Amino acid sequence: MDESDLHFWKSIAIKMTDQVEKAISPLIGTKEAGEIIRMGADGTPSKLIDLVAEDEVIEVLVSSKRPVTLISEEIGTIKINSSPNEYIDIEALRNAQGKNLRNTEDFYNSSNDPQIIFVVDPLDGTSNAVKKIPAFGISIAIAEYTPTKDLPSLNDVKMGFIKNFATGDFYEVIKDKESLVNGKKVSPSIQTSLNHSSMGAFIYGTKFSQINNICKIIRRMRILGSVALELSYVGNGAYDAFMDLRGNLRVVDIAAAKLFVEQSGGLITDQAGLPLNGLLNLSSRTSIIATGNKDLHKEIMKIMEVI
Amino acid sequence: MDESDLHFWKSIAIKMTDQVEKAISPLIGTKEAGEIIRMGADGTPSKLIDLVAEDEVIEVLVSSKRPVTLISEEIGTIKINSSPNEYIDIEALRNAQGKNLRNTEDFYNSSNDPQIIFVVDPLDGTSNAVKKIPAFGISIAIAEYTPTKDLPSLNDVKMGFIKNFATGDFYEVIKDKESLVNGKKVSPSIQTSLNHSSMGAFIYGTKFSQINNICKIIRRMRILGSVALELSYVGNGAYDAFMDLRGNLRVVDIAAAKLFVEQSGGLITDQAGLPLNGLLNLSSRTSIIATGNKDLHKEIMKIMEVI
Repeated sequence: MDESDLHFWKSIAIKMTDQVEKAISPLIGTKEAGEIIRMGADGTPSKLIDLVAEDEVIEVLVSSKRPVTLISEEIGTIKINSSPNEYIDIEALRNAQGKNLRNTEDFYNSSNDPQIIFVVDPLDGTSNAVKKIPAFGISIAIAEYTPTKDLPSLNDVKMGFIKNFATGDFYEVIKDKESLVNGKKVSPSIQTSLNHSSMGAFIYGTKFSQINNICKIIRRMRILGSVALELSYVGNGAYDAFMDLRGNLRVVDIAAAKLFVEQSGGLITDQAGLPLNGLLNLSSRTSIIATGNKDLHKEIMKIMEVI
Repeated sequence: MDESDLHFWKSIAIKMTDQVEKAISPLIGTKEAGEIIRMGADGTPSKLIDLVAEDEVIEVLVSSKRPVTLISEEIGTIKINSSPNEYIDIEALRNAQGKNLRNTEDFYNSSNDPQIIFVVDPLDGTSNAVKKIPAFGISIAIAEYTPTKDLPSLNDVKMGFIKNFATGDFYEVIKDKESLVNGKKVSPSIQTSLNHSSMGAFIYGTKFSQINNICKIIRRMRILGSVALELSYVGNGAYDAFMDLRGNLRVVDIAAAKLFVEQSGGLITDQAGLPLNGLLNLSSRTSIIATGNKDLHKEIMKIMEVI
């Protein structure tokens, strides 16, 4: 992706952020927002506020007038502007339900040109938005994929944009560049002692034996309920560490925040300490251990007796 | 307290909220905010942002020109305006350190007139404010106490005011009246099934055997890191339930939110299911189980095998 393309797609991501924020704002904290409208492409129920957010995402991509693939929770994986005068009927796509979630291999083999893929969580922290708990926002990862033997994965992500709509904080990152919050360069925590660590930890529903030791030792534990935002907190040091050990975290939900953590200088692996390189599709799942630095990561792995 | 007194002290509480918010706002998200300046009256370290907030609290009470007792974390328990031209030297009081934390009995027996007590947490969620994690604010409980055999307790609280400075949401309650958020009457959750419950749960540092069962069964768990705000969430239904089982929660920190939950129609007890009636002093501690309704409370007690 050259500078001009980076600039173009960044402007689309910012437009997307603005339009989604505007569209959902009247719904924040309302009962209506949480009404289940249909089943999404990923097999989980779609709430009104999720669909309102995703409609804006699709519309902004259509308005870009460039061919682009969208991967998003409710609509699935779709191609947009693949032919010059293509008409995108969102309602028809939604009615197709799970059918949009095609075999990823077939999907990408249909072309040999480099493709732009928008991996979007239009509203991360939906239940927070419905209850007006101040951690919900958009996550946008932009990947560039040239069809080869490998399918598109987290390694292909070139840019990430995350906004907490409740606070207005805007997180952005471009591969091989700095991680920024509200335009300012950020750094992760230098805390190396678990005893003094504040950690985001999605632990409910996990085996307690796995994390009992961690919870006993850490200074502070937080669960805000928005993985994209809380993972980004490792990038700017708001959290010393973040872990999600439930094992069913969608790869697409962390696509932007993972790059944000890495480019800030933080460390992110799965629960076994291995690099994250999941495929960019809705069925791909992972666990996460992210820290501000290597020493704290080692500390966590040691305590979990994985190493 | 008659209507005119209620009105007067409410206006003082609102002035306090505004002044604290204004004073701390330049410090949010800064390293300076978290610098430890001295030890507080309660024996824990006072951070710069806590002291800045508390100074405003004291100044507003001095400016009220009426005799009032303040109970606050850093300064301890102090009398303000007890003689007509009293001069409050905040710095001297701070230097007295733990000495302000006098024997409560002696303190209240010094007068037989009804006394107004402000129980204030100038900044609940300090570490969030330092890291710009969006859950921090002020908690103000106003109690009226007529010296008798009993010392002032949670039962003497007549009004409560809580503001989340990160979102601007303002929670207010007057005894025997409705609980309001941003001026609108709120109701707690009618969810009676733990399986479908979203719960705030301060569990790190507790015995996991106590809560293992709860964590396995609940739908969503949250830990924002501000007990006053999260307890208030039970009042407006943002949380179906809230529990803090660490057993070292300060009674003064929940004095406002407890009334808010009760007047909304929610239920609040300690871990044993008993009414909360802790004394209003800095050494008084408790555990909490708060729910939107009786059925969910029973459900929790059953699972914890306390009943």
